[in-house]
Amino acid sequence: MVSMKDIAKVCDVSQAVVSKALADRPGVSPETRQRILEVARQFNYRPNALVRSLQRGQTMTIAVAANVIDDVYAGRILQAVFERLYDAGYEALVFSWDQQVRKGSHMLRSMGERRVDGLLMFPPAETPTPEYMAELRSFQRPIVLLDQAWPGADFDFVGFDDITGARRATEYLLELGHRDIANFHYRSVSTGQDRFDGYLSAMIGRGAAVREDHVIDSRGEYDAAYDQAVRLLASPARPTAVACFNDVVALAVLAAAADAGLSVPRDLSVVGFADLPQASQVRPALTTVRQNARDLGERAVIAILDRITEARDGGRDRAALRAERLPTELVVRGSAAPLHRT
Amino acid sequence: MVSMKDIAKVCDVSQAVVSKALADRPGVSPETRQRILEVARQFNYRPNALVRSLQRGQTMTIAVAANVIDDVYAGRILQAVFERLYDAGYEALVFSWDQQVRKGSHMLRSMGERRVDGLLMFPPAETPTPEYMAELRSFQRPIVLLDQAWPGADFDFVGFDDITGARRATEYLLELGHRDIANFHYRSVSTGQDRFDGYLSAMIGRGAAVREDHVIDSRGEYDAAYDQAVRLLASPARPTAVACFNDVVALAVLAAAADAGLSVPRDLSVVGFADLPQASQVRPALTTVRQNARDLGERAVIAILDRITEARDGGRDRAALRAERLPTELVVRGSAAPLHRT
Repeated sequence: MVSMKDIAKVCDVSQAVVSKALADRPGVSPETRQRILEVARQFNYRPNALVRSLQRGQTMTIAVAANVIDDVYAGRILQAVFERLYDAGYEALVFSWDQQVRKGSHMLRSMGERRVDGLLMFPPAETPTPEYMAELRSFQRPIVLLDQAWPGADFDFVGFDDITGARRATEYLLELGHRDIANFHYRSVSTGQDRFDGYLSAMIGRGAAVREDHVIDSRGEYDAAYDQAVRLLASPARPTAVACFNDVVALAVLAAAADAGLSVPRDLSVVGFADLPQASQVRPALTTVRQNARDLGERAVIAILDRITEARDGGRDRAALRAERLPTELVVRGSAAPLHRT
Repeated sequence: MVSMKDIAKVCDVSQAVVSKALADRPGVSPETRQRILEVARQFNYRPNALVRSLQRGQTMTIAVAANVIDDVYAGRILQAVFERLYDAGYEALVFSWDQQVRKGSHMLRSMGERRVDGLLMFPPAETPTPEYMAELRSFQRPIVLLDQAWPGADFDFVGFDDITGARRATEYLLELGHRDIANFHYRSVSTGQDRFDGYLSAMIGRGAAVREDHVIDSRGEYDAAYDQAVRLLASPARPTAVACFNDVVALAVLAAAADAGLSVPRDLSVVGFADLPQASQVRPALTTVRQNARDLGERAVIAILDRITEARDGGRDRAALRAERLPTELVVRGSAAPLHRT
C-alpha cells in the first residue's frame, strides 16, 4: 500500500505538505494540492484510520458486549445492530461478556484504551463484582443496555414490554376457559420477572387461583424445563394449560407432553414467548408472543447514536436516563385450544 | 482519564520523559522512571491503544465478516471465534458481509484503513463482483474462509467433511432397507454440493437408483422445503426416506409429513444435517449428522493466528494454501426406522 512518504517522493514535496493536502488544511498551493490528490488517487492511497481517530477523538467504533449469541433471538438482534451501525458509518467491536466477567478481566480497560465511542451491552448472566460495576459507571462514553434491564444499574435501556405481552398470553388462555394455568418462569432475569408479573396480573385480574406447585422455575433452559414438565404432567393435579417464559421452554413442554402420550392442544394448551422460527415450524405450531428482535437491535443503535450526537453537541442532561419498551403481539397458532370438558 | 501531560506536570518532568519511561525506552534515570510509573499507576493511566498500534504496526484486531448470523449454527461458530480471539489477546471487529456486497461498499478499504491483522470470513450468499474479489486477493493480511469454500477463491479454509457426513447418513438409510431415498439438496453453496455428492456416492455405491423427481432443490430454507415436501409426499411415487441438506430442511419435511397425516418414522424416514438444538427437541427427535460448530470457530482462530505468527516471523510459503475439514458424526434418534414392509 502506498504511504504519504511515497506520495511525497513522487510529487517531490515534503511529507508535511502531503499531510496538509490530504487533510485539506491550509499552507499548500492549489496546484500542489491538486497534484498530490491525483497521485494519491492514482496509487490507491488509503488514509490510516488510526491516525484519523487520534486527530478527531472519535473512532467510529461501538463496542458490543454480548453474552450468549448462539441462539436465534440474540443473533437477530446482533445482526440488526451490525447492519444499522454500518449504515451509520460505525463499526462493531465485539466482546464476549460472560467469559470476561467470569475471568475477572478488563473489557472496560481495553475499551477505554481503544477509545470506542460507545457501548451496547447485553447484560451478562453472571452479575459482575461491585468493582466491575463501578468501573462501568465511570466509563466516559454512552452505554445502552439491550433486552435485560440490570437491577440497580442506571443505564439507558431498550427492551420489550414483557409485562403486557405475558399478561395478554395468559388472558388468552383464560378466555379459552382455562383456570388452572401453570407458569414456567425464569425470574432471576429481568425479562423473566416481568413476564411472571404479567402472568400474575392476568390471573389475579380474572380471579383465577395460582397454585404454588404450578409455578415452576424453568431457568430458561430446555433440559431443565423438560425434566420439570415430565414431573408436572405426571402429577394427579396436572394443569390444563401452561404459560412459558419463552419458546424454548414451551418446546420442552410440548416434547414432555408428547412423551407422556398427551395430545396438544386437546389435553394441554401451551403458549410460548419470542416467536423463534421453531415456533411456527413444530407441530402443533406454537401459539406465542412475538418479539421483533431486529427492531430491538435497530432501536438500540438509534439510542446510542443519539447519545453520542448529544455529547458531541454539548449535550442534553445526561442524568436523565431513557428506557424504551417495544410492543409485542400475540400470535395464535395450534398449541392452545378451548378447555376440553370431559 | 489522566494523560501523559498530567503525569508530566505531577512529576515535574517533560512529556517526552514520561513517554520514554512508560514505553520503557532509555534516556530516563531509574529514580525518575520509578516515580513516573508510580504516578501512572496511582492515577489509573491508560495508554492509548491507537498510539501503541501505530508504533507496533499491529492492532491486535481480527476482522470477522459474517453474513447471516441469526441462526444457532453461525452463532455457535461466532461465539467460539470471539472467545478464542479474546483468549489470544485479540478483539473482533465485525462486518456484515452480504449487506456490504449488495451495496457494493468497501469493507476491504475500511479494513485496510484500520489495519486489522487478519480476516475471518463466512463467504457471503451473493457472489461479489470480480473487482471485489480482486480487492480481496490483494488484501495484505491473512484470510481464512469458514464453513463454505468459495469456488475459485484461493484462501485458507476451515470447514467440515460434508461429503463423508452425508454419505454416512444415506448409507444408514440404505442399511435400514430403504432404496427409494429422496434428497432435499442445496447445491448452489459448496457445503450443499458436497453433501449432495456424499448422497450420490452412497446411492451409487449400493446400486440404488436415484430418481430425478426425488432430487429436490431445498434452497436451504424452511418455507421452500416445506412447500416442496408437501408436493412430494402427495405424489403417488413418494419415497420411503428423505436425506436433507440440513436440520431446518428436515424439520420442514417432518412438518409436511405431519400435516399430510403421515407418521414419522413409520411412513417416512427423515435424516438432517447439523444437529441444531431443535433436532433433539422436536418429536420424533431427528436423526442427523452432528457438526461441532464451536470446534469450527476454534480451529479457524488457530489457523489465522498461525498465519499471523508466520508472517511476523518472516514466514513459510504463503502460496501453499491450507484446508482443514473437521469430522462429523451420525446421531441416531427417532426419525428414521427400518423400511416398513406392507
